[in-house]
Amino acid sequence: MDMNDLVLVSVDDHLVEPPGMFRDHIPAKYRDRAPKVVQRADGTDAWVFEGQEATNVGLNAVAGRPPDEYGAEPTKFSEIREGCYDIDARIRDMNANGVAASMNFPSYPQFCGQYFARAQDRDLGLAVLRAYNDWHVDEWCGAYPGRMIPLGLPPIWDPQLMADEVRRLARKGCHSVSFSENPTKLNYPSLHDPHWDPFWTACSDENTVVNLHIGSSSSVVITSVDAPIDTMITLQPMSIVNAAADLIWSPTLRKFPDLTFALSEGGIGWVPYFLERIDRVYKTHRAWTHQNFGDRLPSEVFLERIALCFIDDEFGVRSRDELNLDMISWECDYPHSDSTWPQAPETLDVYLAGLSDDEIDRITHRNAARLYSFDLFGHNTREQSTVGALRARATDVDLGFRSSERLRKTGTDTVTVLNLVANLPS
Amino acid sequence: MDMNDLVLVSVDDHLVEPPGMFRDHIPAKYRDRAPKVVQRADGTDAWVFEGQEATNVGLNAVAGRPPDEYGAEPTKFSEIREGCYDIDARIRDMNANGVAASMNFPSYPQFCGQYFARAQDRDLGLAVLRAYNDWHVDEWCGAYPGRMIPLGLPPIWDPQLMADEVRRLARKGCHSVSFSENPTKLNYPSLHDPHWDPFWTACSDENTVVNLHIGSSSSVVITSVDAPIDTMITLQPMSIVNAAADLIWSPTLRKFPDLTFALSEGGIGWVPYFLERIDRVYKTHRAWTHQNFGDRLPSEVFLERIALCFIDDEFGVRSRDELNLDMISWECDYPHSDSTWPQAPETLDVYLAGLSDDEIDRITHRNAARLYSFDLFGHNTREQSTVGALRARATDVDLGFRSSERLRKTGTDTVTVLNLVANLPS
Repeated sequence: MDMNDLVLVSVDDHLVEPPGMFRDHIPAKYRDRAPKVVQRADGTDAWVFEGQEATNVGLNAVAGRPPDEYGAEPTKFSEIREGCYDIDARIRDMNANGVAASMNFPSYPQFCGQYFARAQDRDLGLAVLRAYNDWHVDEWCGAYPGRMIPLGLPPIWDPQLMADEVRRLARKGCHSVSFSENPTKLNYPSLHDPHWDPFWTACSDENTVVNLHIGSSSSVVITSVDAPIDTMITLQPMSIVNAAADLIWSPTLRKFPDLTFALSEGGIGWVPYFLERIDRVYKTHRAWTHQNFGDRLPSEVFLERIALCFIDDEFGVRSRDELNLDMISWECDYPHSDSTWPQAPETLDVYLAGLSDDEIDRITHRNAARLYSFDLFGHNTREQSTVGALRARATDVDLGFRSSERLRKTGTDTVTVLNLVANLPS
Repeated sequence: MDMNDLVLVSVDDHLVEPPGMFRDHIPAKYRDRAPKVVQRADGTDAWVFEGQEATNVGLNAVAGRPPDEYGAEPTKFSEIREGCYDIDARIRDMNANGVAASMNFPSYPQFCGQYFARAQDRDLGLAVLRAYNDWHVDEWCGAYPGRMIPLGLPPIWDPQLMADEVRRLARKGCHSVSFSENPTKLNYPSLHDPHWDPFWTACSDENTVVNLHIGSSSSVVITSVDAPIDTMITLQPMSIVNAAADLIWSPTLRKFPDLTFALSEGGIGWVPYFLERIDRVYKTHRAWTHQNFGDRLPSEVFLERIALCFIDDEFGVRSRDELNLDMISWECDYPHSDSTWPQAPETLDVYLAGLSDDEIDRITHRNAARLYSFDLFGHNTREQSTVGALRARATDVDLGFRSSERLRKTGTDTVTVLNLVANLPS
C-alpha cells in the first residue's frame, strides 16, 4: 500500500484543555467553583480547583518545539502549539500528519480524573467531571464528526457512580473510558478487588473499552533520583507490563467475558516474551497458586481481550504473528515528546512494507473503529480520509519549529529525573 | 545437534549454604561470632548472625518437590534436597540433568551479601564475607575442578574493600562477582554515582563480570498485596529492565570500556524491544538530555557489554538475530521454582532445533566459559561433559518427587503475595 493511501486512526493522543471549557457545560450553581486557569507568579499558567494547582508540564505539549527546548517545567498556553487546545487547529495538525481520527486523553485532570476525585465536595467533583465529559464528547469531539473518538473520565471514588457515568456516556455514543493501571497507588482497591465490579459490569454491558494509559497510577518509573531522565523515558511505556500481569491473573477477565481492556502507550514488542512467560508460570505454578483458566491458556485470554497499541515499534510489528492482529492499533501520541507528528506516515511506512493491505488496514484503523464502536467512514469517506487526501487539505499548516528563549536548555550536563519529580502532581 | 551431545553450562543456579561452612575458613578470633544455623521454635532452620535471623524460603529450594507443595514459608534442611547444600549430591544432580558446569548464587547472605553488610562490627562482617568467599571458591567449587564457576560476594559497604576483594578473588581464579541491580534500594548510592568507581576499576582490571541478579535490590515486584502471587512470579525476571536502563544511561559503561555486566535470570525475549526503545529515546531526546554515545548507538553498546541469560525463552532464542549471540548464555536456576531441572536438556532441545552447532555451542557453554574466564575442558574433556556422558554416570540418582505433609497446600483459593511479603528479608 502506498503511504498516501493509508488511513490512520490514533488511539492515543492528548489534549490540553482550553480555559473556557466549562462555560457551556457546568450547572449554574457550580459555575464559580469549577476549575479555572490562572497565571502563576512565574508567568506560567495553571488550573486551580478547590485550591489544587495543576500545571501543564512541558514534555506533555512539545509538538512543534525544537528538541533542545524539551523539559519537565510548567508552561503557559502562549508557549504551546494551538493544536494542543484548539479543536480547529488540532484538526489541521491532524490533517497535516495524515491522521483521520484520534482519541484524546486528558491533561490537567490526570489520566482517570484524579484531580476531580480529590475534590472535598463530592457533589461538586461529580458535576465538574460530568461537565468535563460533556465538553469532551459534545464540544471537542462534536465539532468535527468522524474525526475524534470520544473518551470519558470515570468518577473513580465510587464504582456505582462510575457505572452510571459509563452508561450515560454510552447513550452519548462514547464507548471508551480511561482508568488506572494500578488504583492502589491512588489509594483505591486493586484491580483484583470485587470493589470495581459495578464499573466492569457497566463497561461490559455498554461495550465500553477500559483504557489503562501508562502513568495512570500517578507515578513514573524512577530507579533513583540521580538517574538520567532517559532512564524514565525508556522504562515508562513497558512499565504497563505490571498492569498486564495484574489483569491476566485477576479474576476480572474471566468473570466478565465481554469486557475489553486497552494498554495505552504500552508498545507491543515486549508482549511475545510476556505471553510465553505467563503460560510458563501457569503450567509451573498453578498446582499451588490455584489459578484456573479451564481449557484455555493465559496467553489465549490475553490475546483475545487486551488491546495493544504502538507509536513506533518495528520489532513488535515484525513479531505480529505472535500477537492477535485484531487487537493491535497504532497511536501518534500528539503532542507528547514521544510523538511521531508530523512525520507519522513516513515513520510507519518504513516497517509496514512487508504487510498485506488487510493487515495494514487492521492496524491503522479497522481495529480502532471496531474496538471503540466508532463510525469512521459515516461522515467522511475512505477516500477523504487517506494520508494523501488529508495532507492535500493542509498544505498551509506551518510545520516549522517554534522556539522559546525561556525554554532553551543550556549546558551539557545529563538531565536527571530530579527535575521531573519536582513537577509531578501529588 | 543431538540432545545428548549438548554441553550445558548454567550461569545461574543457587546453593543453600550448609551449616558447617565457616569451620575451616573463619579466623579463630571470629569463630564464635560467625553466622550459625539454629532451629526455630516452629522446627524450621535459620541462620543467625549478630541477632539477624535468615530463613531459607521454600520457593528457593523446591527442586524435587511436588508443585502443590511450593510456597514461600521458611523450611528446614531435612525438607530440602541434598543437592541444594551438599556438593557431592549437587554434582550428582547436575549429572542427572546433563549439566557440565554451574555458577551458584548465595542464599542466606542475599545476592550481594546484604546480610554481611548489615553487621554492626564491620571487621567481623568483612572477615565473615571473606570466609564465605573462601569457602565458596576453595571448598564448594574446589571439590570438583571444572564443574563450578566461582562467584564472589563483595563488601558492598566500602568500594575500596570491594576492589580489594575483587583482586583477591581474581588471584584465586574467580572472575565473577554478584552486585545489586539497584543499590539505592539498599541505601547505597545509585549505579550512576562515581562512588562505585574503585569497584568498577578492579572488575575491569581483573576481567571480572559484575552479575546483577533479579531480586538483588532486596525487593520483589509487588503491584498490590492482594495480587495473586503469579503476578510477582511473572514480573520478577523482566523487572531487570530497570537495571538495564540504568546501566545504558549511566556513565559507567562508557567510562569503563572493558567492564562487563550480566543480567542474571533476566531472560532475553524482551530485549529486542528494549534495544529499539533506547535508540529511539537517544535520537529523540539527546538534544535536551545531553546523552552522548559518540559515533555509536546505545543498542550497540548494550549488545557488546551486557551479558544475558535465559532459562526457557523460546521467543528470545528465535529472535537471536536481534541480539549478540556471543553474549547470551543458558541457565538452569536449580533449585528454584523456575528451574527446568531435571529435564533441562529436553526443554532446551525443543527450540535449539533451528540453530547451527556453532550457535548452540555458544549459547550452551562457550560464551559462559569465555565471559567468566572458566577453564571448562581443562579438567574434563568435551566428550566427558556432554548431556549423554553425564547422565550415563547418574542413572542411580532418584529423580522422583519427595513429598512433605507439612508443606502440602490445601484449599483452592488463589495465593496472594501477602504470603511472600511476610517472609521477605528486611
